[in-house]
Amino acid sequence: MTIKVGIADTTFARVDMASAAIKKLNEMTSKIKIIRYTVPGMKDLPVACKKLIEEEGCEIVMALGMPGGKDKDKVCAHEASQGLMMAQLMTNKHIIEVFVHEDEAKDEKELAWLAKRRAEEHAENVYYLLFNQKFLEKNAGKGLRQGFEDVGAARE
Amino acid sequence: MTIKVGIADTTFARVDMASAAIKKLNEMTSKIKIIRYTVPGMKDLPVACKKLIEEEGCEIVMALGMPGGKDKDKVCAHEASQGLMMAQLMTNKHIIEVFVHEDEAKDEKELAWLAKRRAEEHAENVYYLLFNQKFLEKNAGKGLRQGFEDVGAARE
Amino acid sequence: MTIKVGIADTTFARVDMASAAIKKLNEMTSKIKIIRYTVPGMKDLPVACKKLIEEEGCEIVMALGMPGGKDKDKVCAHEASQGLMMAQLMTNKHIIEVFVHEDEAKDEKELAWLAKRRAEEHAENVYYLLFNQKFLEKNAGKGLRQGFEDVGAARE
Amino acid sequence: MTIKVGIADTTFARVDMASAAIKKLNEMTSKIKIIRYTVPGMKDLPVACKKLIEEEGCEIVMALGMPGGKDKDKVCAHEASQGLMMAQLMTNKHIIEVFVHEDEAKDEKELAWLAKRRAEEHAENVYYLLFNQKFLEKNAGKGLRQGFEDVGAARE
Amino acid sequence: MTIKVGIADTTFARVDMASAAIKKLNEMTSKIKIIRYTVPGMKDLPVACKKLIEEEGCEIVMALGMPGGKDKDKVCAHEASQGLMMAQLMTNKHIIEVFVHEDEAKDEKELAWLAKRRAEEHAENVYYLLFNQKFLEKNAGKGLRQGFEDVGAARE
Repeated sequence: MTIKVGIADTTFARVDMASAAIKKLNEMTSKIKIIRYTVPGMKDLPVACKKLIEEEGCEIVMALGMPGGKDKDKVCAHEASQGLMMAQLMTNKHIIEVFVHEDEAKDEKELAWLAKRRAEEHAENVYYLLFNQKFLEKNAGKGLRQGFEDVGAARE
Repeated sequence: MTIKVGIADTTFARVDMASAAIKKLNEMTSKIKIIRYTVPGMKDLPVACKKLIEEEGCEIVMALGMPGGKDKDKVCAHEASQGLMMAQLMTNKHIIEVFVHEDEAKDEKELAWLAKRRAEEHAENVYYLLFNQKFLEKNAGKGLRQGFEDVGAARE
Repeated sequence: MTIKVGIADTTFARVDMASAAIKKLNEMTSKIKIIRYTVPGMKDLPVACKKLIEEEGCEIVMALGMPGGKDKDKVCAHEASQGLMMAQLMTNKHIIEVFVHEDEAKDEKELAWLAKRRAEEHAENVYYLLFNQKFLEKNAGKGLRQGFEDVGAARE
Repeated sequence: MTIKVGIADTTFARVDMASAAIKKLNEMTSKIKIIRYTVPGMKDLPVACKKLIEEEGCEIVMALGMPGGKDKDKVCAHEASQGLMMAQLMTNKHIIEVFVHEDEAKDEKELAWLAKRRAEEHAENVYYLLFNQKFLEKNAGKGLRQGFEDVGAARE
Repeated sequence: MTIKVGIADTTFARVDMASAAIKKLNEMTSKIKIIRYTVPGMKDLPVACKKLIEEEGCEIVMALGMPGGKDKDKVCAHEASQGLMMAQLMTNKHIIEVFVHEDEAKDEKELAWLAKRRAEEHAENVYYLLFNQKFLEKNAGKGLRQGFEDVGAARE
């Protein structure tokens, strides 16, 4: 039986992170079915994710967003994150937040690279949560990162 | 069968954004019925939207507000946004937040233009969410904005 | 049949805003019954309002508070506001927040004037929400304020 | 019939505020039964209070905590306060928050005095909420404070 | 009958705090069964904890995380804390938050020491909450800390 995975993304973002995530997921497994739901902005993502879970039957959802660099945008990202948190607690399902802040990258080219790379690496986390939780347990405390380099475990 | 669309707005705002949104919606489709609910201020919007959904049967709601430029006003906007987020999660319906901050515009004339333009462009998003989700999916990651110019996709 | 209106206020506030609000409400209509509930501080207001709605049968509630001027007080006001927001969403009833910050007025005399005036003008809003929603709709986007002068609609 | 009053406190705090509150409550009335629940830190208080209400049958609870002076501690206090707010709204019972910030006092001696005094004065509020709400109503808008001096009503 | 204790941790953290906590718990008692659940990051912890409680039957959970030193990381930690708070209120079970901020330690070696020590001392708190609440009550107001030195009660 296939497991439904929701992919919620936005027209506000400046990179098509969803396609990168979907490609990675389909490379890793054929046991899932992707359901995509595009909304205007980040703050529309939480209810979109909840609908993917409760109305579409998704077992897990990725929420892909790209906050701008202004203070206002950071407040929006915070509100969206709180909504994603609440949506998870109301459904007992994971929603993997994949947010890339515009000011994390030095130029548009790096932004595109970072956004896709982070989406792919979080797609891998979705796979592990669904099919291989032991992999995550083995990497507990290892300082893994999504997008830029892993920082690694603290040297003792 | 017509779909009910709620429009919640305030007497605090300095521009009649609701009329602009309603006009745009009616231009785009005749398959909807508008239900308008005006409240005093932004923080009255979340329960107004929830009542529009649960008591009036709206399938989607627009929440139109205009925070002032002071720090206190920004905190109010944040509280209203959190309430709109929660109202969506409690109802599984979209509430499209259309907030225009007074300090986004250089003068009253631009403020009026911006507020109406953003209301119209978000009215288009309401139309797409109800009747043409494929349009949103095609524009995923394209850097769309409501009000000012779209910023576009990041150049790779 | 009379409609029950709740009035929740605090011993922390430095002005008896409740009496001003009650007087105004009783001047405007005889179709309501006031139920008053005084608590120690602002953060006790949300549950007091929820009890007024759920245990006393109030259709709408005014929450009257007066945050002090220190940073700590502003955080308290934010927490109280979030609680009032949640209480509204849990009950589908309006709770009109009437907060007057100590630093909004230049001296104690103006503070007393402002607090009573804002309480009265929000009492009028309660009346409109209950009995004359068309009045609010007619004033949508008109830049109305409670306490100090209305700022008016943006000039186009 | 005795009314159960919950007292939740922490090992993190530097003053035994609970004993001061319990002593005061027992001096004021014999119609209550105290149930105490000590947890490690402030952020453990909200669920402790909710358990006191829902599992132990408390009619009202005091939550006694002492945030440290660092920025991190202030964020913790904010999170704990939000939790106490939510716990009240989920149970329709008052939880009287008695937080003393380390930086409110000039030295350890004043801190101990302040913490106990505030706990006692809030214990009085618990008594009034349970047995004499008219007393609170008579003092509405009087600028009462717990711990330091009352500031009094604004002079008109 | 054994009591189930959940241990939720992350691959983002740079120290394996879970192993330290589990070792300590097993040293203190044989009356518990540990259920471990590793997730990618801090913001995945709240729903993981709720699943441990509701789907795995845990009586109490430890949530182990390590926020980075940047502003963005502090916002994430705040969101995760709010989620843990809510998860506790939705389940009436304690979730002991054990967060170590990277900037609390002067180097990686101290970070590793601090993270493990704090995890161990909070494991002791889990033991006391489950089996010896009187110990916590005896230490109420004693200024206990987890990780660094206890600060002790305020000198009167």
